[in-house]
Amino acid sequence: MAPRGRLIVFEGGEGAGKTTQLRRLAAQLNDDRISHYVFREPGGTPLGDSIRDLLLHTDGHVEAAAEAALFIASRAQLVGAEVRPALERGKHVLLDRFLLSTYAYQIHGRGLPEEELRVANRLATRGLVPDLTVLLTMPPEMGLARAGARGAADRIERADVDFHQRVATAFAAFGTPEWQQTHPECGPIVAVDARGTVDEVGKRVSAAVYHALPELDRSTVTNA
Amino acid sequence: MAPRGRLIVFEGGEGAGKTTQLRRLAAQLNDDRISHYVFREPGGTPLGDSIRDLLLHTDGHVEAAAEAALFIASRAQLVGAEVRPALERGKHVLLDRFLLSTYAYQIHGRGLPEEELRVANRLATRGLVPDLTVLLTMPPEMGLARAGARGAADRIERADVDFHQRVATAFAAFGTPEWQQTHPECGPIVAVDARGTVDEVGKRVSAAVYHALPELDRSTVTNA
Repeated sequence: MAPRGRLIVFEGGEGAGKTTQLRRLAAQLNDDRISHYVFREPGGTPLGDSIRDLLLHTDGHVEAAAEAALFIASRAQLVGAEVRPALERGKHVLLDRFLLSTYAYQIHGRGLPEEELRVANRLATRGLVPDLTVLLTMPPEMGLARAGARGAADRIERADVDFHQRVATAFAAFGTPEWQQTHPECGPIVAVDARGTVDEVGKRVSAAVYHALPELDRSTVTNA
Repeated sequence: MAPRGRLIVFEGGEGAGKTTQLRRLAAQLNDDRISHYVFREPGGTPLGDSIRDLLLHTDGHVEAAAEAALFIASRAQLVGAEVRPALERGKHVLLDRFLLSTYAYQIHGRGLPEEELRVANRLATRGLVPDLTVLLTMPPEMGLARAGARGAADRIERADVDFHQRVATAFAAFGTPEWQQTHPECGPIVAVDARGTVDEVGKRVSAAVYHALPELDRSTVTNA
């Protein structure tokens, strides 16, 4: 039987480059013939994609608790139907957003009670803990400027500046040892400076991933 | 300022006649010029109706926790956007399913942990407690036969017999004083025998509602 796969999560505020860096690592794993799956939240399953559409494109007011529960629903479906089975078959999984985004957006951004959301997260994950979370950090104004340059904003990106400021402050705290000690359900988190070119940041990400999960590092193997 | 409206919930297993009896009471309130709103779960808002569609008509496997979170999302939106504002404006609200359905279907039917779902319910209701729940009771095989006679079943009605048996057993327990004492967030529950004609059951429902909420009883007022 194959050993259990590794779950690697990419997190960060708007414009920090999560998706770009996740794809870069995925390409590297492909080059090294390390099989893996890539999923994003919300989404990653047919039900999750429908939920994503409700979350990002519903017109009119969405209650904060309804928004949170929709994220939890998408997560529960993704973990149960895709992530856990893949890990059990020995495949690695790269995930674009996970638990930390609930902390940043729903708890710190929307002001929902931490204890209730934490229980809801537990319902969705049934105890699955990431092997590593790569937290891309950047001054919030820089990230928002980058995200803004991407064009058409979705419902959550359109929230006010205060909201995004609270989200950014929260993300910055997740890299500290204090936060990780009190939130063991989120697993180990490594903060990576997201400033610089894609390649500069990418090298930092690879170094952090290979340091934490050396079995993924094939750079020392030569096939020549 | 108008006094706060009353929240009256109708609950029961498949085929117990919840919706029929709710409409009968609504018609009676209309005749008596008592203004009120009627909502159903899941649904009752544009977002909730989209969630209802996902819940009842998604093809393929839906994780139990995802299903539960979708119900919670619909509830949070309904309570926050419609029910609470209506009650605060002094309007009464009749609700087709609410907290007890989570207990019956998600906790007892699907086997999800009670404590986590209870916290999720709290997230959705933010402490709103029904003034009265009318629990329509009927031997489960009778209810399922009635529901079956209605034709095309949705995804949840199509679940296996064991599931519906667990749901029915759960509903039967909710009428007991023991259950109500340990679940104060569900408010007072009155069990009404749902066997007999619509009119026979309707008279029992009116009697139970007027007994609990005498301010809704206009039968003693004559306008002649």
